[in-house]
Amino acid sequence: MRMYDLIVKKKHGEALTTEEIRSMVKGFTDGEIPDYQMAAMMMAVCFRGMNEAETLDLTLAMRDSGEVIDLAAIKGVKVDKHSTGGVGDKTSLALAPIMAALGVPVAKMSGRGLGHTGGTIDKLESFPGFTAELAKDAFVCNVNEIGMAIAAQTADLAPADKKLYALRDVTGTVDEISLIASSIMSKKLACGADAIVLDVKTGNGAFMKSVEDARKLARTMVSIGQLAGKHTAAVITDMDQPLGYAVGNSLEVIEAIETLTGNGPKDFKEVVFALGTLMLQAAGKARDEADARAQMERVIADGSAQKKLAAFVAAQGGDFAPVFNTDLFPKAGIKRNVPARQSGYVHRILAEQIGSACMALGGGRETKVSEIDLAVGIILQKKNADEVRRGETLAVIYGNDEEKVEAASKIVQAAYEIGQQPIKQRPVVIEYIN
Amino acid sequence: MRMYDLIVKKKHGEALTTEEIRSMVKGFTDGEIPDYQMAAMMMAVCFRGMNEAETLDLTLAMRDSGEVIDLAAIKGVKVDKHSTGGVGDKTSLALAPIMAALGVPVAKMSGRGLGHTGGTIDKLESFPGFTAELAKDAFVCNVNEIGMAIAAQTADLAPADKKLYALRDVTGTVDEISLIASSIMSKKLACGADAIVLDVKTGNGAFMKSVEDARKLARTMVSIGQLAGKHTAAVITDMDQPLGYAVGNSLEVIEAIETLTGNGPKDFKEVVFALGTLMLQAAGKARDEADARAQMERVIADGSAQKKLAAFVAAQGGDFAPVFNTDLFPKAGIKRNVPARQSGYVHRILAEQIGSACMALGGGRETKVSEIDLAVGIILQKKNADEVRRGETLAVIYGNDEEKVEAASKIVQAAYEIGQQPIKQRPVVIEYIN
Repeated sequence: MRMYDLIVKKKHGEALTTEEIRSMVKGFTDGEIPDYQMAAMMMAVCFRGMNEAETLDLTLAMRDSGEVIDLAAIKGVKVDKHSTGGVGDKTSLALAPIMAALGVPVAKMSGRGLGHTGGTIDKLESFPGFTAELAKDAFVCNVNEIGMAIAAQTADLAPADKKLYALRDVTGTVDEISLIASSIMSKKLACGADAIVLDVKTGNGAFMKSVEDARKLARTMVSIGQLAGKHTAAVITDMDQPLGYAVGNSLEVIEAIETLTGNGPKDFKEVVFALGTLMLQAAGKARDEADARAQMERVIADGSAQKKLAAFVAAQGGDFAPVFNTDLFPKAGIKRNVPARQSGYVHRILAEQIGSACMALGGGRETKVSEIDLAVGIILQKKNADEVRRGETLAVIYGNDEEKVEAASKIVQAAYEIGQQPIKQRPVVIEYIN
Repeated sequence: MRMYDLIVKKKHGEALTTEEIRSMVKGFTDGEIPDYQMAAMMMAVCFRGMNEAETLDLTLAMRDSGEVIDLAAIKGVKVDKHSTGGVGDKTSLALAPIMAALGVPVAKMSGRGLGHTGGTIDKLESFPGFTAELAKDAFVCNVNEIGMAIAAQTADLAPADKKLYALRDVTGTVDEISLIASSIMSKKLACGADAIVLDVKTGNGAFMKSVEDARKLARTMVSIGQLAGKHTAAVITDMDQPLGYAVGNSLEVIEAIETLTGNGPKDFKEVVFALGTLMLQAAGKARDEADARAQMERVIADGSAQKKLAAFVAAQGGDFAPVFNTDLFPKAGIKRNVPARQSGYVHRILAEQIGSACMALGGGRETKVSEIDLAVGIILQKKNADEVRRGETLAVIYGNDEEKVEAASKIVQAAYEIGQQPIKQRPVVIEYIN
C-alpha cells in the first residue's frame, strides 16, 4: 500500500484498516514515509477524525514500535496513573505513597517538566541525592520491597509516538482528540501496568479547555485501555486555577508531605482521593468509594503513607530527612507578597500564567537542558471564589533574584481576575469516566 | 510571522493576509519553511479553501517567485491560451496559425507531455528539425515577423509553483480548486501576455469530472486574471471522449492541418472556433461571435492560416513540406482495426484509456526522459452517440511493435462503452465564462 493512497482515503473521510495503520506507523518510524506525507495525513485526521478501531490500531502500533515493559516480576495488580498535565499538580507525590501503604504496587515511569508544568522527577530532585535513573532490576526490586518506585522514562518507549508528536507539534496538528488519546495511551500501555487510572484536567490551565472536550478525551482513552485489555478509568478534574496552593518544585513537595500528614489543601486532597479510589478499585482492594476513602484516611492518620515516601526517597538515593522536617529543604532568599489591586472576588486564576511566573523565577525548564532552581515558586493565598480586599496578599513569591521576582510578581498579579460579584467555584472533581 | 501560526489560522478557517501569503511562499521557495509544514497547510487548504483575495495573493506570490516575462517588444495585444489538458487536444496547433493569420500575435510558452495527455511541443517535433528551444530575441522577432512562436517553458517561470506542485502531488492535495487555479494562473501571468483565454475541460477524461467543478475552476481563474489586470475569459469544453479523431503526435498534427484546410473534425473545429472567438474579442478584432467565425472561416478558406503554420515551422528550424503534404510524415508500420464486440450505440469513450493506449504504443512519456515514437497513435472511427454493429471498426491502431499494438487494441476496446439505447451527445462547447 502507498502512503499517498492512505492520505487520500483519510481525506475523503474513510477509515483506515489495521494493516494500513500498522504499515503507516512502521514506515514513518523507519523513515520510509517522509515527514511531509505524515504531516498531510495528520492534518486530514484533524478534519476527519479517527473512529474507535482506528484509534486503537494507532495506539497499539505506536506501543509496539519500541520496548513494551514486562512487569510480571512485580507482585500484585500494578496500577499506573497518568495526568494530562496542569499547574501545581503534585498528585503522584502524595498518591503513590498512599497506594504503597495500602499494598497497591506503584511502578511509575515519569517525565521531566517542560514549559509551564513541572515534572514529577524534577520535584523529587528536591531531595538531595535522589535519582530517577534506575536499572530495571532495582526498579522491580524496590516496588516489591517498598511498594513503589518512580523511574525516568527511557527513550525507547513508543518511539513512533515520540517522532509523530514532534511532527504534530510543528504542523498545528496536536489538538485532535484521537491523536492525543493514542499518544498518551501508547506510552501508558508500553509501561506494562495491569490497570491505568487517568486524571484528565479541564479549564483555562489545561489542554482541554471545556468539560465536553475533556470528557471526549477521557472516554477515548478509557475505551483504548479497555479494548487493549487493561482495566482503565478516568476522572475529570478542574484546572481553572492551579491545584492546591503551591507552585514550584520543593514548595510542591512540601505541600504533598503536608497532605500525607493530614494538613494539605482540600482541593488537592480531593483529587488525590478520587484517583486513589479508582486505583484501589482497579486493584480490587476497595468495596466502594467510602471504603477507599476510609483506608486512605487511615494510612494518613497513622503515618504509614509518610513513611512510605521516606523509604522510597531513601531507596532511590535521596536524603529522606526533609520528609519529616520540611524546613530542611533549601529556601529561596527573597519573599515578596503580591497585593490585590482591587477589592472583590477571585473569578479566575490563569493557571498557565502562574506556571509562567514560576518559570520566570527559574523554577521551570525553557529547553531540555535548562538548569532548575528547585527552591523558587509561588504560594497562592487566595483561590477562586475567595473574597479579597484591595492591598491584601493574593500570593507570595519565593525567589533568588530581585529582577526575576519583580517579573514574576507582575505575571501573578495579572493572572488574578477579580470581579465584583461573588461566584461559586465548581468542585475540583468534576466527573468519573469508567 | 511563524508558519506554525499560519497553519493553525487556516486550519481554523480564517483567511490569510497578503503579507502572510507572500512570506509563506517566499519562505517555502527559499527552503526556510520545511515541506512538512507546507504539506499540513495544503491539506488545511483542501478542507477550508481560500477566498478570492487569498487565491489572488497566492497566484501573484508564485508568479513573482521567478522571472516575469516582458513581451512589450511584441506589437499588438498578445493573447495567451491555456488548456487544462485532455486527450487528442491539438487545439494550439490549429488555433495559433489562425490567430496569426488574423493579426493576433501568439507568443506561447508550452510544455512537454507527461502521462496520458500529449504536449504541444512533442507534437510539433513531428516536423523534422523543429525546435522549441528559442532564445528570447528570436522568440520576439518571430512573433513580430510571422505572428506566432511557441517556445519550451523555461525553468525559472514561477519556481514556487513548481516546488509546491511537486509537494501537492505526493500529499494528496492536488484537487483543491483555488490551488489548481493559482498554479495555472501563476505561470500564465508570468508569461507576460496582455490577455488570457482558458479552455477548461470537463468529463471522464478531464481533471474536472463535473461541469459544476469545471465552472468553479473557470470562474476562479477568470477572477484571478481580471484582478491581476489581464483581460481573461474561459470556455468549458467536453472531454467525455477524446477531442477529434486522432490521438498520437504526428496523427494529431495531421488532423490540425486538415482543420486548417477546412477538412477537420466538427467537434475539434468547434473548440478551436470558441477559443478563437474569445481571443479575437480580447484583441479587439471582432465585433461579435458571428464576425469572429466569419474571419476564421476566411483565413481557412484562403489558405493563409495553413501558410502561417508553415512559416512558423520553418522559422523554428523545421521542415515545413508536410504542412502541404501530410503523407511526408513518418508512418507507423502496423495498422490494426479494433472491432466492436457488440452492436449498439457508443455511450462513452474513456479518454484517459485512449491516452493510455497511445502511451502503450510508445507515443507518450512515462517519465521525463522517455523517448517518444511520434508516428504511433489511434484514429477513432466511432465517437459518442454513434451507432455501431458488432465487428465494425471502432478505431484504428497505428504502431511499430506487434505486442504493443496488441496491448493497445485491448485498452481501446475496453475504453468504448456500448449500450443498447441511442443517446444524445452534449455539445462540445458547453459554456462561456467571462
